[in-house]
Amino acid sequence: MAACVAGESDQIASRDVSDGRAPARYQVVGIGNALVDVISHAPDDFLAKFELVKGSMALIETERAVELYRALGTAVEMSGGSAANTMCGVASLGGRAAYIGKVSADELGDVFGHDLHAVGVAFRPGEPSESVPTGRCIIVVTPDAQRTMNTYLGVSSLLRTEDLDEATIADGEVLYMEGYLFDRDDAKAAFRRAAEVAHANGRKVSLTLSDSFCVDRHRADFRALVRDQVDVLFGNDDEIVSLYEVDDLHAAMEIVRTECDLAAITVGAEGSYVVTRDDVVKVAAEPVDRVLDTTGAGDLYAAGFLYGLTTGESLERCAELGAIAASEVISHVGPRPLVELRTLIR
Amino acid sequence: MAACVAGESDQIASRDVSDGRAPARYQVVGIGNALVDVISHAPDDFLAKFELVKGSMALIETERAVELYRALGTAVEMSGGSAANTMCGVASLGGRAAYIGKVSADELGDVFGHDLHAVGVAFRPGEPSESVPTGRCIIVVTPDAQRTMNTYLGVSSLLRTEDLDEATIADGEVLYMEGYLFDRDDAKAAFRRAAEVAHANGRKVSLTLSDSFCVDRHRADFRALVRDQVDVLFGNDDEIVSLYEVDDLHAAMEIVRTECDLAAITVGAEGSYVVTRDDVVKVAAEPVDRVLDTTGAGDLYAAGFLYGLTTGESLERCAELGAIAASEVISHVGPRPLVELRTLIR
Repeated sequence: MAACVAGESDQIASRDVSDGRAPARYQVVGIGNALVDVISHAPDDFLAKFELVKGSMALIETERAVELYRALGTAVEMSGGSAANTMCGVASLGGRAAYIGKVSADELGDVFGHDLHAVGVAFRPGEPSESVPTGRCIIVVTPDAQRTMNTYLGVSSLLRTEDLDEATIADGEVLYMEGYLFDRDDAKAAFRRAAEVAHANGRKVSLTLSDSFCVDRHRADFRALVRDQVDVLFGNDDEIVSLYEVDDLHAAMEIVRTECDLAAITVGAEGSYVVTRDDVVKVAAEPVDRVLDTTGAGDLYAAGFLYGLTTGESLERCAELGAIAASEVISHVGPRPLVELRTLIR
Repeated sequence: MAACVAGESDQIASRDVSDGRAPARYQVVGIGNALVDVISHAPDDFLAKFELVKGSMALIETERAVELYRALGTAVEMSGGSAANTMCGVASLGGRAAYIGKVSADELGDVFGHDLHAVGVAFRPGEPSESVPTGRCIIVVTPDAQRTMNTYLGVSSLLRTEDLDEATIADGEVLYMEGYLFDRDDAKAAFRRAAEVAHANGRKVSLTLSDSFCVDRHRADFRALVRDQVDVLFGNDDEIVSLYEVDDLHAAMEIVRTECDLAAITVGAEGSYVVTRDDVVKVAAEPVDRVLDTTGAGDLYAAGFLYGLTTGESLERCAELGAIAASEVISHVGPRPLVELRTLIR
């Protein structure tokens, strides 16, 4: 596989997302599970005791959420949610972003909405629920900075086609959807509808696979979505290997390039691969003094990449921007940038 | 004023808090405003724009809370409340602590209760309210690491005599009360009752003045309380000067030693003074590489001091323990220890 040169990538980027239309109101419109993170540090034997798989995301019901929370040490609450983190990253880079995701009219819902507004992300929360609370994600950070997530979806999982603000989707250069939402049939239908709306308005559709276990649960649906409706695919090595049930990343990349125009695949500290129909480019990760909490790494990589893509950068530069954004978020606790990312990319 | 030697202080400490009784169930029982902190970073002109006095605590009503929160950047939610922070500090040092303070049966109330239980502080929340939410404190941290607090008291301010768990107070070596609570008459009455219960059971009563504006608002009541019911007084230089309306700290210390057996007065980066009827000892602050957020500094100083006092340490060592505990909390964002303080004092 030949590395593409920046000039070629530039052409791909501008061909892909501009095509002569008036500037869209939003560069990126995200759809995802609206969650408040409950973050706590714990030793590895906490994971063993509760049979948690390090680095994964497990869906939990109320009873399990209560059990885990009770056992958890002092926690900090911060707005999270994968695609919401990404939209905050886009805004922090100086981009225009909107977010669609369901919260309740409760205190955590207020917190979630506040933190989007605070960084300038337009929030389209759908219809609030009277009875189902805002979702939350219990994140256990182990001493190796890995995060293990336990998500009580709450009202976030009730997202349906009716909750989509189609005018917002129509006015976003790139639609960005979070694979986690795929755990509910209504949300799957909403995804397909959102992609239809985007394409009908000449927009691009992107998807992040989110989690290899999530891919396992919905492999056939994910494959069909990628093949039929996704222009830009995000994922890490585990997720893409799981998607195509192959032995290694290179085999997976050979398949994905036949199914999808563009894929950006992260490989942890090694960086990322940008895969197009013709080329594969590897881009290094940004060095970090000390990794404190990997929560949000993939989310912020996507933010940098999408920001680059919608500002006409080369694909290699898109991946570099992703690496810079990811490096900021893993150097502190919490899934969203603590500094204005735009100051880091100058 | 002669500096006392450790031997003398030791005698004072053991005379003050042990007097031959069986060990109490709790070393310290705290009473205060149960609050969840909403912490955000902002430049100094944010304070100017909203006419906030740096370093102070202002009480705010719902409308102002909404206005400030709306203007605030990305925030993090963490359990706070001055006396609650102190009780968590005592527990983190290895001590036995209990806390009395009102929360509602809402999400922030759950968070507050969880974070006390998580570090082993016994929580006596009084009767929950159906209609008044859990209190919160909007904390603006400026680049100089100073914190400016805006407190919406919510249900915390409804603490009344009926909410006191008198058995818990009776079983704590030292009762610790937070001056902030003095802003409501019912709470003042509860303070006096709590002090009566403590003394009737041979316990000591301590008070922190909390804030110089709070002292201004209730000077006469504070003076009467200190003179009549307080054995150990905590405060900083501004607060103690305000309490006695004198020109400088030394004048204030000359008065306080005639009114109260023991006072521990913090003077920021300079350390603290321990004032008894006979002596004044100055103890240095613990060096800190980089001060990130001074929220909780006084609370944790009191935690270290009270832990020392209830484990028979000399008064000088009590102040050193206070300095160590304070140094930990100002070196990170948030009002409670992130590491087990017991590991820092070995």
